[in-house]
Order: sequence, then C-alpha cells, then structure tokens
Amino acid sequence: MEFVQRLEAAARRTEDHLRALLDECGPAANGRLGDAMRYAALAGGKRFRPFLVIESAALFGVEERMVLDAAAAIECVHCYSLVHDDLPSMDDDNLRRGQPTVHRAYDEWTAILTGDALLTLAFEILAQPAGQRDASVDVDLVLALAKAAGGRGMVEGQMFDLEAEKLGTPETPTIDHIRKLHALKTGALIACACEAGAILGRATAIDRAALRRYGEHLGFAFQIADDLLDAEGDTEIVGKETGKDNARGKATLVTLLGVDNARACLEEAERDAVNSLHLFGGRAATLIEAARFAAQRAR
Amino acid sequence: MEFVQRLEAAARRTEDHLRALLDECGPAANGRLGDAMRYAALAGGKRFRPFLVIESAALFGVEERMVLDAAAAIECVHCYSLVHDDLPSMDDDNLRRGQPTVHRAYDEWTAILTGDALLTLAFEILAQPAGQRDASVDVDLVLALAKAAGGRGMVEGQMFDLEAEKLGTPETPTIDHIRKLHALKTGALIACACEAGAILGRATAIDRAALRRYGEHLGFAFQIADDLLDAEGDTEIVGKETGKDNARGKATLVTLLGVDNARACLEEAERDAVNSLHLFGGRAATLIEAARFAAQRAR
Repeated sequence: MEFVQRLEAAARRTEDHLRALLDECGPAANGRLGDAMRYAALAGGKRFRPFLVIESAALFGVEERMVLDAAAAIECVHCYSLVHDDLPSMDDDNLRRGQPTVHRAYDEWTAILTGDALLTLAFEILAQPAGQRDASVDVDLVLALAKAAGGRGMVEGQMFDLEAEKLGTPETPTIDHIRKLHALKTGALIACACEAGAILGRATAIDRAALRRYGEHLGFAFQIADDLLDAEGDTEIVGKETGKDNARGKATLVTLLGVDNARACLEEAERDAVNSLHLFGGRAATLIEAARFAAQRAR
Repeated sequence: MEFVQRLEAAARRTEDHLRALLDECGPAANGRLGDAMRYAALAGGKRFRPFLVIESAALFGVEERMVLDAAAAIECVHCYSLVHDDLPSMDDDNLRRGQPTVHRAYDEWTAILTGDALLTLAFEILAQPAGQRDASVDVDLVLALAKAAGGRGMVEGQMFDLEAEKLGTPETPTIDHIRKLHALKTGALIACACEAGAILGRATAIDRAALRRYGEHLGFAFQIADDLLDAEGDTEIVGKETGKDNARGKATLVTLLGVDNARACLEEAERDAVNSLHLFGGRAATLIEAARFAAQRAR
C-alpha cells in the first residue's frame, strides 16, 4: 500500500473507533457536550498522531483493539489542545480544518468544557478494561500521556508561547528558545505517540528510547513545516488562517532564520528522525516515509 | 482526636504532599504555570475530598503514600474544576476562598491552562510509580477518576447547569432535574473520593458499592448545604460571593422547595449517607461525622 493510503486507512480506523467511543461516553453522549465533542474530534484532519501509534505498534505486533484505544486517546488530547488553543483568550482563531472553531460554532464555555471532557476521556479510554490488556501497560501509557500533555509538555509549551506573545519575551528569542518551545508544544505529544507503540509492545528500553528520539525529531520537523506553511501557505490549502505568526510579530524559526535556513533545519530534523530508526532496519520503512511526509508538506 | 482536628490534619498532610508534587511537576514548576497552579491548588479550602479518601482508605489499612497520592489527585481535579467554572464565560466569579480567582489574579488564558495542567497532573500522580503500588489499582483509580470528572460526571454536570442558565431550560426545572445536576456536578467526584479508599484497599465489591453510595448521598447533602449557604450566607464567612444563584434566577432545591423543605432534604441525605455505612460498624465513625459535618455547615 502507498504511504498516503496507509495514512488514510489509519485515519479511518481511528475515526471509526473514536466515534464509537464518543457514542458511549456517558450522559454527555446525547447532549450538547457530546455534540461538541464529536464536532471537535471527528472533523477530519490527517490523524498523524494515531498513525504514528499504529505504525510504531506494528513493529511489535500489538493487538488491534489496544492500538486503536491508544491512538484514539492521543487524538483526544490533540483535539482538546486545538479547541483550547483556538479560544479567544488564547490564539483567537476562527477556522480549524476549514470549519468554524468550536467556540465559533458553539460558544466559549462550551468550547472550554468540550476540551476538558476530551482530555478526561483520553485517560478513561486508556484505563477502561478491554480484552487482553495488561494493567502495567495501561499505567505506563497513562503516565507517558500525562507527562506529554501537561506541565511537563504541551500545556507548558502553550504557556511559554503565550507568555512571549501576550506579556512580551524577557529577551530576544533564540533558536534554543524556539526549539524548547517546539519540543514542549508539539514535540512531546508526537514523541508520546511514537513511544506508545513501544509501550504497547512491551519493547526493550533501547527500542522505546529510539522511537521516542524519532518522535522528537519528527515533531520538530512537523513544527518547522507548520511554520513554513503559515509563512507561505494559502488559507484554502492549510484549512486555517495563515500569516498569523507574522501579523502577531511571533518569533518562529522562519522569522528568525529566514525561509532557506528554516528549510535546512527541517531537512536536518528529517535526517535525524530517520537515523533514529536504524535499529529497526527495513521494518521501519513506513515510519521513515512518515518523516519524509512531515517534511514534504512544506516543500 | 476531634473531628475538626482530623479534618485539619488531613488537609495539612494533603497540602504538604500536593506542594511537593507541584514543586517537581516539570518545566512548569518554576514559571508562570507552576505559580498559577500553586495559587489555584494551595490556597486553602477544607480539603474535604482528600479527607474522604484518607478516611475511607483507613477502613482498609492502606499505605500512606498511596492514600496521599490519590487524595492529591482528586484535589487537583477539584481545584481545576473551580478554576474553569470561575472563568468569565462560565460562572464569572471574582472571589474564591476569599481570594481573587485565578483569571483575576493572572488572566484568562493562564487560568484555562492552569486548569488543564491540574487535570492532567491528577492522572500523572495516579500513574507514577511509587512504592508497593499495584498497577491494577492504579488503573482502577484512573478509570474511576476519569468517569467522575468527565462527560459521565462533573463536566457534564457543569454543561447541564450552564445550558439551563445561559440557553434557557427547555422545561421548568423539577426536583429530579436538580438531583441529576447535583449528582453529576458535585456528587460524582465526592463519591469517587469515597470509593477511592475501597479501590486502594482492594475491598470487596459490596464494601466498594457501600462507600460509593455513601459518597453519593454525602455529595447531595454537601450541595444542598452549599445552596442554603448561597441563599442565606454571608460573603465573609463563605469566602466567595453569595446570593448569586438567586440573582441569576438559577433554580436550586432552595429556590424550588423553599428553605425549610430544602433543610428536610438535607437531613434525609445525611441519614441516607450514614445508613450506607452500617456494614462497617463502629469503624466508620469518622465518616459518619463527616456526613454530619457536611450538613451542619448550613445549620
């Protein structure tokens, strides 16, 4: 199967699973909260993180249900973060994946609660009993996801980003500053998606660390590509408003280094990601393609 | 030890533990996010939910560290919910425990991220390796907390409440409607705190169900007492603005039944809570006092 077809197949499987999980998520399922959760979580998107869970788990032959649960949980966290980041008091975005953001389609309080419920659902999915599951695997996944999502990862990244934008950066942003920001804001969850396959597969510490490193480089590549798209992209193609970073005077690797040097950084990150996989040999072919895919988006 | 002293001792132990956990919660610990998390989580309060974890676990002789972790995790969820509920687009409160709410002391985006980080930290605390821990107990706790906090519980309760207030209730609120609202919004997390002791102590299903039932009745008593305090209380004593329910035309058991009938409901809930504990005999004396305490606040 071609890479893009594999990506699309993974997205469909994750969405079907996520839809089923959302349909049985309690009293909320049939009301405004459930509607908004479905609006936020089933509105398309590449489902790149679930794809990474599925492909990293494929290295270890993990049972389908466990893989899809982990994929759906990580996607819930990703979707919640988009809903909250888009809020008026944060990035104030009107469009997401070509559709009105949740607070535009509903309202602000609904958007906040929808994010809260999706974040909580992620942990419920990981902890709910299913088939052959091993409790120590579940706990490892909960821990990895909580670290990636919270004050050690994504939320701290968003705080770091908004602090600079809204309160003014204490010093001129450096490349290290931007790298740290990306590692927290985007890298942590992508790395967690890659590591999840190793956790599910009870892989050796070496294999797990390799997949995590791969995810960190991949996440960096992904973010530079995003920044390049924002600087150069077209709203219609990207599905959200572009040129906003520049309009806000927000420092990115692109504004700091210029387009050409940012592209060189992107290629280096792609190379580092691919090199992290060497111990898996040919089995990691799809993950290698994923690194190319992440970088190519901005070419 | 007197009941109030036991309550205060539990609050101190939980706060010390929570402070230590917040001091090591990653990159966030030393920045604005960590400051705001500490502001939100260490600003006092009765710590009634942690107390319930500690006292229900005491029935089964659970190791201290495990108990305090569960107590701290549930308190993180409680504190996050207060921070988000107080937001301008939700209840728009300026005071909490006699201090400016997080969005007043900081700003709105900081408050949203602080809530997100506290919610995520709760699951990290439950999943982190510590001492004699059994992974299946950790997973049970994660599942119980996620169900109590998310679309099956607290978040759905807040949605239900705000929908009626902001969008207009489709029909006249009934007592059943209000009971359902309380069960979701306040009851679920209090019941989870009581059940947590049984989960930690690997109690029988019967003991676990009894503690859960106790928690449900207790939560109801707690909420009626809150509504009575709001209707009759003094801002200085309560530590937050009072009379807001009435000012908003919000239906509560007090506005629906009047003060005297609401008091009768409160006494019935207290009695039901106490009766749920009969199979523990004298060992549950402190939990019985807790039910009296919850009801007495409004006397």
